[in-house]
Amino acid sequence: MSSRIHHSGLRSKVMSAEEAAAFIRPGTTVGMSGFTGSGSPTAVPLALAERIRAAHDRGEEFRINLHTGASTSPEMDGALAEVDGVALRAPFQSDPAMRAKINAGEIDYVDTHLSHLAQTVWNGFYGPMHTAVVEISAIREDGTLVPSSSVGNNKTWLDLAEQVILEVNSWQSADLEGLHDVYYGTALPPSRKPVMITAPSDRIGQPYFEVDPAKVVAVVETHAPDRNSPFKPADDDSIAIAQHLIEFFEHEVAQGRYDERLLPLQSGVGNIANAVMAELVKSRFKGLTAYTEVVQDGMLDALDSGTLATASATAFSLSTEAAERFNDTVAAYRDKLILRTQEISNHPEVVRRLGILAMNGMLEADLYGNVNSTHLMGTKMMNGLGGSGDFARNAFTSFFLTPSTAKNGDISCIVPMVSHVDHTEHDVHVVVTEQGLADLRGLSPRQRARLIIEKCAHPDYRPALEDYYERALKGSDGLHTPHLLGEALSWHQRFLDTGSMKQG
Amino acid sequence: MSSRIHHSGLRSKVMSAEEAAAFIRPGTTVGMSGFTGSGSPTAVPLALAERIRAAHDRGEEFRINLHTGASTSPEMDGALAEVDGVALRAPFQSDPAMRAKINAGEIDYVDTHLSHLAQTVWNGFYGPMHTAVVEISAIREDGTLVPSSSVGNNKTWLDLAEQVILEVNSWQSADLEGLHDVYYGTALPPSRKPVMITAPSDRIGQPYFEVDPAKVVAVVETHAPDRNSPFKPADDDSIAIAQHLIEFFEHEVAQGRYDERLLPLQSGVGNIANAVMAELVKSRFKGLTAYTEVVQDGMLDALDSGTLATASATAFSLSTEAAERFNDTVAAYRDKLILRTQEISNHPEVVRRLGILAMNGMLEADLYGNVNSTHLMGTKMMNGLGGSGDFARNAFTSFFLTPSTAKNGDISCIVPMVSHVDHTEHDVHVVVTEQGLADLRGLSPRQRARLIIEKCAHPDYRPALEDYYERALKGSDGLHTPHLLGEALSWHQRFLDTGSMKQG
Repeated sequence: MSSRIHHSGLRSKVMSAEEAAAFIRPGTTVGMSGFTGSGSPTAVPLALAERIRAAHDRGEEFRINLHTGASTSPEMDGALAEVDGVALRAPFQSDPAMRAKINAGEIDYVDTHLSHLAQTVWNGFYGPMHTAVVEISAIREDGTLVPSSSVGNNKTWLDLAEQVILEVNSWQSADLEGLHDVYYGTALPPSRKPVMITAPSDRIGQPYFEVDPAKVVAVVETHAPDRNSPFKPADDDSIAIAQHLIEFFEHEVAQGRYDERLLPLQSGVGNIANAVMAELVKSRFKGLTAYTEVVQDGMLDALDSGTLATASATAFSLSTEAAERFNDTVAAYRDKLILRTQEISNHPEVVRRLGILAMNGMLEADLYGNVNSTHLMGTKMMNGLGGSGDFARNAFTSFFLTPSTAKNGDISCIVPMVSHVDHTEHDVHVVVTEQGLADLRGLSPRQRARLIIEKCAHPDYRPALEDYYERALKGSDGLHTPHLLGEALSWHQRFLDTGSMKQG
Repeated sequence: MSSRIHHSGLRSKVMSAEEAAAFIRPGTTVGMSGFTGSGSPTAVPLALAERIRAAHDRGEEFRINLHTGASTSPEMDGALAEVDGVALRAPFQSDPAMRAKINAGEIDYVDTHLSHLAQTVWNGFYGPMHTAVVEISAIREDGTLVPSSSVGNNKTWLDLAEQVILEVNSWQSADLEGLHDVYYGTALPPSRKPVMITAPSDRIGQPYFEVDPAKVVAVVETHAPDRNSPFKPADDDSIAIAQHLIEFFEHEVAQGRYDERLLPLQSGVGNIANAVMAELVKSRFKGLTAYTEVVQDGMLDALDSGTLATASATAFSLSTEAAERFNDTVAAYRDKLILRTQEISNHPEVVRRLGILAMNGMLEADLYGNVNSTHLMGTKMMNGLGGSGDFARNAFTSFFLTPSTAKNGDISCIVPMVSHVDHTEHDVHVVVTEQGLADLRGLSPRQRARLIIEKCAHPDYRPALEDYYERALKGSDGLHTPHLLGEALSWHQRFLDTGSMKQG
């Protein structure tokens, strides 16, 4: 038996994943751990999927409502979606099988701000939480739990669930102990107190989860890597976007609006975010801080080089190579890295106070700075909103990043009107593509339109955008935000009809 | 000379409005006081408008950039718009002349969250603030200023402006002294500290504005009422909406989600907000609190009856009758009423912590709970976003309220797709019309659509909405958020073409 379980009562609950999964009943709500593929349980969800498949084969109904931290793994979202085991899913996903069922109308998906789910589940209108399935890296003698490579909503699931299943994953480094900051001061209003973080390095909690051992019905031992993917070198578009951003940072420092250490950085997931960190490492900036959701490869490199002094997040999202390197050297990062609950890593109060520079990817922006982060052609869910709203809405400066085209140029990511809005014109400060950067702060809609076309649109689509805008200036009912309503979404319809937004 | 000016240095600066207006130069940025018609300067803007008209008659350029708290008065927004004296306007307006010029494309309007303007002006990308024109109710011996009937952004304008013009308005009650709470603890990041408000009644500042007397170039005495309008009794739709809300409050109390004193109420401006307060006064609820932008007639009545124990706001917005009554009895409200700077009255940190129940009007909502608060038919600015985003985005529960139809039934306020988004599906919890209330919390887009049609749509439009939704379920590219892109905005286009959203 694993040397990771130091509490005798919980040691007696060790069983197989199949036995553990049998505790989960049809029609109930389950809170699982996992954030960007880090710290997701693997054995119990797979066993649960098998149980559901067998039930369906017998003609029995068996679906659960599934809450997590964010995206998880093929062993969870993939396996459960494939067996039609999920009725309702929140707050974020990125799994191909899960996405397909959501877009086929077979799974109800509630795309939610990542900082909000804990309070809404606590508030009770999702109904009671039946089971928590939480991966941890160790159980201590006193029954407290050492978190794994993501903290996410685990504290809330452990607090609220009627029964708890723990996966103790010995693949996770034993040195993670001490890295986490689990805040036990949250409450529902009117009992809320200020969250006393004034710098990304502040610790306000404890390194361990609490759990009532009497609620733990099963402990399952695993040795399973996180869902890490191979590292992809940055592409030219990502590097160009990163360079535009750094040029802007320099400009703001010169204007006296950011100081030499900028302001705490939030950086989304993916290649562009990695490229931003890589370009920052090459830049003259040193001693920066990050207050963000996830630590990617680029952020580890930036910590190594001194570009970053501190990074606060709720999860890792590392490549296979970086995860191995990190697992061997965790102890060296203990003073520089903090993983918090996602309520706190994404807390609007803290985001506003710290004055975050929030950098998030998007699918498309329109002439007036409205941003679509989630919906392909207005109707299909890509992944979800994630924490982009938590950060952008309360940021000191919000940046939205995308290459100017997608699908080999058949989609313009700058359109007359976005087909879905996740971030309104009021909350979008800066739009960046490989073409350039549009600083929209303090501009009226008409001023923004000129700038976005000039700075951000791809040359292939610039004339058509200019044409739309000029005709809207003549034909629009009102000229505050000029639009031709009959044509505003025609680019998306053309893509659906012809496979390209380009005019024939 | 007025007995309201007790500082000898500033007494020596008393002059006519015409003389004072001469300090304002073409092309500069001016910060004026005023929030919902309360506490706006009147004499200096009128004199400035005359100066601008004369300059234009001579063929000279003369326009200013104008920042305020929120909406103001005909003497300011009306007069300055009529003489084409404004190049750029922020953050909110509701004046017919100003609106017409904005929608004609002649004034650049930056529609901004009311809690954000101070930090963005301070941050400098609007350029330097040349002049502050601030109405106050008295100047104290030590040179500190007793605020008027709104606080708004005045602290920031007084701090930042190169020169200051004060209007001392003796129409405002002398008893206002002591009512205000002006917080001097704000800062730009990385120097921000927690805003230590944990209840609506908390005071964290001082009752007076500071100003450097050396910056004051003119003091103008006035005796001018606020822009108050006659009180209109609540119409049937507003009463029905209020009753649906109170029924929902009762339901949430029964579920244990709100306690008997609910949570702090934020209530927008207008008839519906007044009706909500009037119905609450008739209800069993007592000892409630408000943390909101404006105190309307209904809120004064609720304070009188004990329905409300405390109200925190940044401005009054009273009828002529209520303003007269209030001016005679201000002292009686000193323990129950607090006017704060709008940075604090609308602060996302405080809104989130207190767990505000945010109730705001809207123009239209769509099947999926996206809300348009500002744009008529997607292109024409009505008034602006105001504080609705400050409150809704960080609220414990966000409510959006409207009659189900407008323009004598020719506009459905529930549409397939909103023509502009100010509040995204992620931030809209509850939609209420006179028809009923749709509680969207925890629902997927498809679940929301069914509920909004059933509960909120007017019977005249319900069949067409059902028809659209059923056809979208068949013809939509993706079924997460079903839409027919070619038809999604056709209701708005039909209104523009035929004067009605109704199908012929």
